[in-house]
Amino acid sequence: MIIVGELINASRKKIRNEIKEKNYDEIARVAKEQLANGADFIDVNAGIFVGQEEDYLKWLVKTVQENTDAPCCIDTPDPTALEAAIKVHKGSPMLNSISLESERYEKMIPVLRGTDMKVIALCMSDEGMPYTTSDRMKIADKLVNNLVQNNVKIENIFVDPLVQPIGSGDNLGVEFLNAVEQIHKEFEGIHTICGMSNISFGIPKRKFANQVFMIMAITKGLDSAIMNPNDRRMMANIIAAEMLAGKDQFCEKYMNAYREGIFDLENKQPEKA
Amino acid sequence: MIIVGELINASRKKIRNEIKEKNYDEIARVAKEQLANGADFIDVNAGIFVGQEEDYLKWLVKTVQENTDAPCCIDTPDPTALEAAIKVHKGSPMLNSISLESERYEKMIPVLRGTDMKVIALCMSDEGMPYTTSDRMKIADKLVNNLVQNNVKIENIFVDPLVQPIGSGDNLGVEFLNAVEQIHKEFEGIHTICGMSNISFGIPKRKFANQVFMIMAITKGLDSAIMNPNDRRMMANIIAAEMLAGKDQFCEKYMNAYREGIFDLENKQPEKA
Repeated sequence: MIIVGELINASRKKIRNEIKEKNYDEIARVAKEQLANGADFIDVNAGIFVGQEEDYLKWLVKTVQENTDAPCCIDTPDPTALEAAIKVHKGSPMLNSISLESERYEKMIPVLRGTDMKVIALCMSDEGMPYTTSDRMKIADKLVNNLVQNNVKIENIFVDPLVQPIGSGDNLGVEFLNAVEQIHKEFEGIHTICGMSNISFGIPKRKFANQVFMIMAITKGLDSAIMNPNDRRMMANIIAAEMLAGKDQFCEKYMNAYREGIFDLENKQPEKA
Repeated sequence: MIIVGELINASRKKIRNEIKEKNYDEIARVAKEQLANGADFIDVNAGIFVGQEEDYLKWLVKTVQENTDAPCCIDTPDPTALEAAIKVHKGSPMLNSISLESERYEKMIPVLRGTDMKVIALCMSDEGMPYTTSDRMKIADKLVNNLVQNNVKIENIFVDPLVQPIGSGDNLGVEFLNAVEQIHKEFEGIHTICGMSNISFGIPKRKFANQVFMIMAITKGLDSAIMNPNDRRMMANIIAAEMLAGKDQFCEKYMNAYREGIFDLENKQPEKA
């Protein structure tokens, strides 16, 4: 599983203040903690600071990379802020995100063309949000083919089929899951990614429902996630589900996780940040 | 989910003694507790008592049915004990089990033919245990077709594709899961069933791994299980996974379970029996 740690996002109240005050130590701590708990990329988002996004985003990239050896997932729809953040980024970042919405698409393609950057490809178009598997596949087909034609490697594309709340329709979980499966069938070597939390919007015990839905998505082939790596049960579920899905040779990661106490879930750790 | 409560089984030490001493109150208690926690059938097994199995099995059926309104799942390979137990059973039981092993098959068919009893159809033949999806499908195809030809209704057949330990091969989880999916595709209206615990044989944190594998199997279409209904997290996982799989209209069962406190998993209840 490729994990994008989602915590350094200005839409979260606590983090918003830390970013605003450029609290270097706290941002460094949250980055390091996510890395220690299994993140492969550290998402950085300063989208809430209109007019100052570029400045804050550059500062976030520098702060994360001075304190970890993880690449960032640069999370902005603003191409100016994006290019500025890419310039200060060491190594190859992930971009969050491109979609088929024409405004976003037109601005992102020149940034991506011919580079080795990874990109999250949202299944969204000018016609709005997708609901069925077929809605998602129509957008994914077009978006992936366009990216490949612009010299983006298939293994650098992370398709996000967009989770929709189960409370809005009994079948919305299945429509998403089947899209994950079909994307992997159609595009060998591609990745799928998503944030889980939207599935449980409007129902109780959201964290529990998200943890269960993650296992279901892995069963269908999901291989990446934008998530909180400090959620111990979610991480334990991922390690077990990947082992049971045949993606853990000789149960090695599972056994290591066991020895590290990752499955000792009864004594809940506080989840900081 | 159709749940067969597995606890009244003489291979379990505690229960063995209760059966041996015909401890009516304790067997009644274990039956009632399983029913209260969601069992649809109560498995009864006295297989360990050679020469006395028939007597004990009849007593178990009577004891369970005097204390619950649940049908039994009569668990024996011995056709004499089976027929005696069926005779004292009120309503239509489930039989555990038939397979393609010729000795077992020949003896079970006359008991089943033209009745309305449900039957667990094990994917096992004289050639031994199945490992691949295709091994399982070869046996399932033959077994299901034979049962149907003997006037067993498709909706009374519960195919058990046989879970094999992940420790014996990284792909053994996937081979099982794909069989579940394929059985439902090929035979409309059929059920699939299994016991989960074999998946985790030989690895640590077995209960946790079984709970995760259950969610994966539900994602592939599993609709019945032989299990301990007093395992609260397993039951919570089933309710959430079925809701997310689109099998819970308007999230009604999920919401009821929430109100009943079934998702309050932090204070672990002792699991009796």
